[in-house]
Amino acid sequence: MIRSYDPRTGESSGAPFAPVSEAEVDAVVRAAHAAGRAWRALPATERAREFSGAEDVTRAQALEAVADALEKNAEELWRAADAETALGEVRLRGEIARAAGQFRLFAGVLRDGAHLEAVIDHASAEPPIPDLRRMNHPLPGVAGVFAASNFPFAFSVAGGDVASALAAGCAVVVKAHDGHPRTSELSAEVIRGALPDPALLGLVHGLEAGGHLARHPAVAAVGFTGSIPGGKAIQALIAERPDPVPFYGELGSVNPVVVLPSVRRDGLAQGFAASLTLGTGQFCTNPGLLFVPDDAGLLASLAEAVAATTGGPMLTGRIRDGYLHGMERLSTLTPLAEGRPGEGAFAVTPKVFTTGLGDFAAALPGVAEECFGPASIVVTYRDPAELPAVLERLEGSLTATIHATDPAEAREVSEVLLRKAGRLIWNGWPTGVAVRWSMHHGGPWPASTAPAHTSVGAAAIRRWLTPTAYQDWPAELLPPELRDDNPLSVPRRVDGALTLPPREGA
Amino acid sequence: MIRSYDPRTGESSGAPFAPVSEAEVDAVVRAAHAAGRAWRALPATERAREFSGAEDVTRAQALEAVADALEKNAEELWRAADAETALGEVRLRGEIARAAGQFRLFAGVLRDGAHLEAVIDHASAEPPIPDLRRMNHPLPGVAGVFAASNFPFAFSVAGGDVASALAAGCAVVVKAHDGHPRTSELSAEVIRGALPDPALLGLVHGLEAGGHLARHPAVAAVGFTGSIPGGKAIQALIAERPDPVPFYGELGSVNPVVVLPSVRRDGLAQGFAASLTLGTGQFCTNPGLLFVPDDAGLLASLAEAVAATTGGPMLTGRIRDGYLHGMERLSTLTPLAEGRPGEGAFAVTPKVFTTGLGDFAAALPGVAEECFGPASIVVTYRDPAELPAVLERLEGSLTATIHATDPAEAREVSEVLLRKAGRLIWNGWPTGVAVRWSMHHGGPWPASTAPAHTSVGAAAIRRWLTPTAYQDWPAELLPPELRDDNPLSVPRRVDGALTLPPREGA
Repeated sequence: MIRSYDPRTGESSGAPFAPVSEAEVDAVVRAAHAAGRAWRALPATERAREFSGAEDVTRAQALEAVADALEKNAEELWRAADAETALGEVRLRGEIARAAGQFRLFAGVLRDGAHLEAVIDHASAEPPIPDLRRMNHPLPGVAGVFAASNFPFAFSVAGGDVASALAAGCAVVVKAHDGHPRTSELSAEVIRGALPDPALLGLVHGLEAGGHLARHPAVAAVGFTGSIPGGKAIQALIAERPDPVPFYGELGSVNPVVVLPSVRRDGLAQGFAASLTLGTGQFCTNPGLLFVPDDAGLLASLAEAVAATTGGPMLTGRIRDGYLHGMERLSTLTPLAEGRPGEGAFAVTPKVFTTGLGDFAAALPGVAEECFGPASIVVTYRDPAELPAVLERLEGSLTATIHATDPAEAREVSEVLLRKAGRLIWNGWPTGVAVRWSMHHGGPWPASTAPAHTSVGAAAIRRWLTPTAYQDWPAELLPPELRDDNPLSVPRRVDGALTLPPREGA
Repeated sequence: MIRSYDPRTGESSGAPFAPVSEAEVDAVVRAAHAAGRAWRALPATERAREFSGAEDVTRAQALEAVADALEKNAEELWRAADAETALGEVRLRGEIARAAGQFRLFAGVLRDGAHLEAVIDHASAEPPIPDLRRMNHPLPGVAGVFAASNFPFAFSVAGGDVASALAAGCAVVVKAHDGHPRTSELSAEVIRGALPDPALLGLVHGLEAGGHLARHPAVAAVGFTGSIPGGKAIQALIAERPDPVPFYGELGSVNPVVVLPSVRRDGLAQGFAASLTLGTGQFCTNPGLLFVPDDAGLLASLAEAVAATTGGPMLTGRIRDGYLHGMERLSTLTPLAEGRPGEGAFAVTPKVFTTGLGDFAAALPGVAEECFGPASIVVTYRDPAELPAVLERLEGSLTATIHATDPAEAREVSEVLLRKAGRLIWNGWPTGVAVRWSMHHGGPWPASTAPAHTSVGAAAIRRWLTPTAYQDWPAELLPPELRDDNPLSVPRRVDGALTLPPREGA
């Protein structure tokens, strides 16, 4: 049975959740698949509804209704999540707002229409070339989504994978994270209440249920946020399918931060310590490696800032155990500082180690493996010219950060980091992922299994879309977005040239 | 040793090609990787060169130089390919023109700039959100490409995978197809002569060399066109990598053609027979399934048209053997017609079988497996209302075709086929893939391992690109495409709104 635990007390509470059997997974996926047929046929936007004369709610409106429902139920949601994650009211209310914002962003994506990538190439007589048109449609099946532990809303049942898949036109079945089963159920209930058919969002509990989900023939793609071993296991299951479907996994990231000699030092140590310990270090973008000049004063200020932090309970006992194992692995390095111990059953202590660049390079790749939690390695260098060769040997990350005042000084390091991470940050800290058109949350393995794609931001919808080309297709059967008169006013490429629809009111 | 065989005589000629050892593969990939650094740093377009003040050739110009070189060497190329494939002058000259056209299309893609997907979201003070910008860059490594047998130019060394990867900014190493090793070498020589560094295009021979290529740490993604077992084997090798990279495989397709009762019958049988036997049936888009009304006259005309065709030599002895095995598998069906036997050592005979819709459905999925070559199954139906449920059970295809005069009659069938194929064709035949902005050459498994992507047409470049987001990044280090003044005039999304650069001369 899956129980809901309070990380502060280690006690379980409430009725347990039964692992879902293969037959139950099958029923949930089938119901979602059936509901998905109607969902993909709904008009995406009000303009599409106007054009078709339908009176249905639009997909964009349904996404906004989900956002409203999340906000309306924020009180109950944050309390449920706090009891299971100990992340606290401020963070959790912020996360609910962010989750709601994600659903609204995707409503905006649908109204914009560029995600359809509509293209029209008219026929030519000489040489004889047929009329060819192309646009994106939802994948022909259910999106399977594996929820993460560390964001009980924004990367879980109310998260970006679910929002983007629903926006694309796919029904979704989520494998709940065992760390917050009650929050998962409550989130699903709130979201379902805002959707035209509750079966559009299925929810299953249990490790084996996850396996059945990844293997289910009606599942057309899988999204995953979690550990490298977990992601590899799902990918292996998918590889055994008769039809291996796309797997979009976000698996791990050490998020190197490089402090160059020209940096202004005020606030640097405090910024690092705050980013390191945010949410007890349980961010995919947590700064796990900090490269700094070998300078006793800087190291002392880092040690002081870390010593001023306080630990806290991790999300689950298993995650806490993983952190403690990571501490053992890092214990060959020199301890630099540790924070005050946190309180609570699953509590851990922030801890920072240090080593020189040469020793660090000699211990690669093992030394740079992600240790999920508030731990980091401060790597000291004497000659910044030695940094690029070492950074080149790092695995992929979601983010890489440079602290410097002189851009010219950063050129070479930034060229290496560009190939190592999906997001480059200047004089900031990697924790915090803005939900915007421009966000990219991905990177080379193990940051992502699909480096062309992102799991956050407007482009995340593309994971659930697939193009269709129409050759000499009759206008009566073309989607309206591909008819010559562009009745839905979507951006299109016509005979090679990008064209924008007239703006409203312009 | 890999020998060059003439499919007409079955005789080998010329010096054999030695399988490439692991050490040699490593050397070729490393050389390509090193050359790729300079290639990705080249200005993509003349505008970029003007802006940077560099005097280098641009990537777009280099692609056009490759196109020119292919055309200039067409005589030697087609003769080499004809000796190894027996595809004939007209087809091979056409294919060289098509390959050259592909390189020119991608030069146009670079000059257009939309493939960069540039996005700018300016900072906001309240709520505090950082400045965030995003665009695509080449994958940080070499593109590994497995050439296909059936298009010795357009899906081989001079093919779309190579053209799109070079356009993206990646160096390429091709695993030559054993069916045309000499053509592969000659193509590589011609292309290298037009590139700023010949190491940008590596070529290796041999099955094991392919394995070493797929596993090489400097390979950042793999493209493949070939059989389902071949594709699965490569995908399994990639799964064992410490960093499983993207695999873009096009593996198989039966390309169903559905003839609805309203169809005009003149020319239908001839069109089918011509499409079936084009290139001795060795097209990925060959019509392997034809659904027709159960009508003796129509069947007789199909039989007559097929009987009027002539077979020919297949590309290799192994492909011929595969076709003969396929014939055995299909021999439980009723033979409808066969063409005249072809001439030559590897020659086969076009053959068409027939069965009723009910029997066909009962024999699924095995009966609908692709039989590569000039074979097809004519499935007769009595009630078109029974078609959707059977079509729903087909695997993914690159194409699906409807023949009808009345679009309304086709609505239900077309809605099923939309979920089954990447390209829908009206009253035409699936063979022939136009290289255009609008082309989609992909589909659900086994048509493609990555249904969001295409291997033909402008969007094929996306397989070799990965986004980077820049947060609060200094203007001096931003790519010019992301600077506020847009000096390279690329299409961008700025603060949520798509914007087009002013057109030249407008």
